[in-house]
Amino acid sequence: MSRCAIIVAGGSGTRMGSAVPKQFLLINGLPILAHTLHAFHRADSSMQIVLVLPADQVSAWNALVSEHGISVNHMVVTGGVERSDSVQNGLKAIGDQGAVVAVHDGVRPLVSAQLITHCFTEAQTHGSAIPVTPISSSVRTVTEAGNQAVDRSSLRTVQTPQCFQREILEQAFADNPGVQVTDEASLVELNGHPIHLIDGEETNIKITTPHDLRLAEVILSA
Amino acid sequence: MSRCAIIVAGGSGTRMGSAVPKQFLLINGLPILAHTLHAFHRADSSMQIVLVLPADQVSAWNALVSEHGISVNHMVVTGGVERSDSVQNGLKAIGDQGAVVAVHDGVRPLVSAQLITHCFTEAQTHGSAIPVTPISSSVRTVTEAGNQAVDRSSLRTVQTPQCFQREILEQAFADNPGVQVTDEASLVELNGHPIHLIDGEETNIKITTPHDLRLAEVILSA
Repeated sequence: MSRCAIIVAGGSGTRMGSAVPKQFLLINGLPILAHTLHAFHRADSSMQIVLVLPADQVSAWNALVSEHGISVNHMVVTGGVERSDSVQNGLKAIGDQGAVVAVHDGVRPLVSAQLITHCFTEAQTHGSAIPVTPISSSVRTVTEAGNQAVDRSSLRTVQTPQCFQREILEQAFADNPGVQVTDEASLVELNGHPIHLIDGEETNIKITTPHDLRLAEVILSA
Repeated sequence: MSRCAIIVAGGSGTRMGSAVPKQFLLINGLPILAHTLHAFHRADSSMQIVLVLPADQVSAWNALVSEHGISVNHMVVTGGVERSDSVQNGLKAIGDQGAVVAVHDGVRPLVSAQLITHCFTEAQTHGSAIPVTPISSSVRTVTEAGNQAVDRSSLRTVQTPQCFQREILEQAFADNPGVQVTDEASLVELNGHPIHLIDGEETNIKITTPHDLRLAEVILSA
């Protein structure tokens, strides 16, 4: 199976209180995005990796690649206004390569090679595969009329990578132009494809705050 | 307004991979429960605090109190089989004291005094007050028929303390014997009382895994 990964990194440093885009911040001396690239390379060194970056961050990234000697082979393409634009730019860069495509948040650098491999394998069989985790807090739903308790046992939070047979993902974008969703699984689901769930990892955190960054350092040092 | 806090600490160390109950583990050299007691004492030094512990943990707790010189005044009562039993034991210990009662997870030691105070004040006005936070991940609901995306913008995860006018909480337990819910707000809601939501804190984490413990250390050191 040929595998491609689209790593989406569109974030700013706003919630970090940082002028540096969060995906460029260092964990144990290496940019977050470098950790992410390494994870996919460890899973499959022949994987084609496309990194989608805001146009105004490309030169800074190239400088970081040189500075840190980041040797994982990857293609850089520029992102769009919305996440869906960025992922579609990544898909265009892949062209007709890759039987299965992963879409991954650039700021989830701690994903294990095992999870990546499992996700690709399951998507090849089922058409899609996304990692999910249970919710350990009580949950409420809020409406204009008020709020009420929700049975958390039926809820799962969704992580990335989200893996799809390439044609299924491409078709979902083609059939739903302009539709904004929070993840690619939601788009694929709109096309009538059931989504196959796999177990996510507690350590596969999305780094959006300074606490997340320090937690990532702690996890990596463990 | 007289204030009481029921701090529920019924956990084992199972998910921690620890023989020590998680609420007794140390953060920066002090048991988790001691941090929790200090938070409530900081919010209101006149607050009556009831700590609900499994019967087989009471002597170990007393030893920790001596060992660490934990000086926050508190009453220890033993818990029941279910969380609801433990909270009711706490309510019995309070008796008719306290216009407003907080129920708090013992393993949420990082709650701020500000949040505690705000929660009590709002509950005095509204009958109830619970802290909630938005969900930043995509969410799915899982049923026997499959799974599907949920609009996360309407969902909130629920923290503690959960504060209630004492009579409202007592009535909810009296009217719903044997009903098991994941938090007290759900029980009060069953009695027809709307639940008043306030903003929770990102740092008010529930410590259930070794990662949570390390994150707590990181947050406390910040």
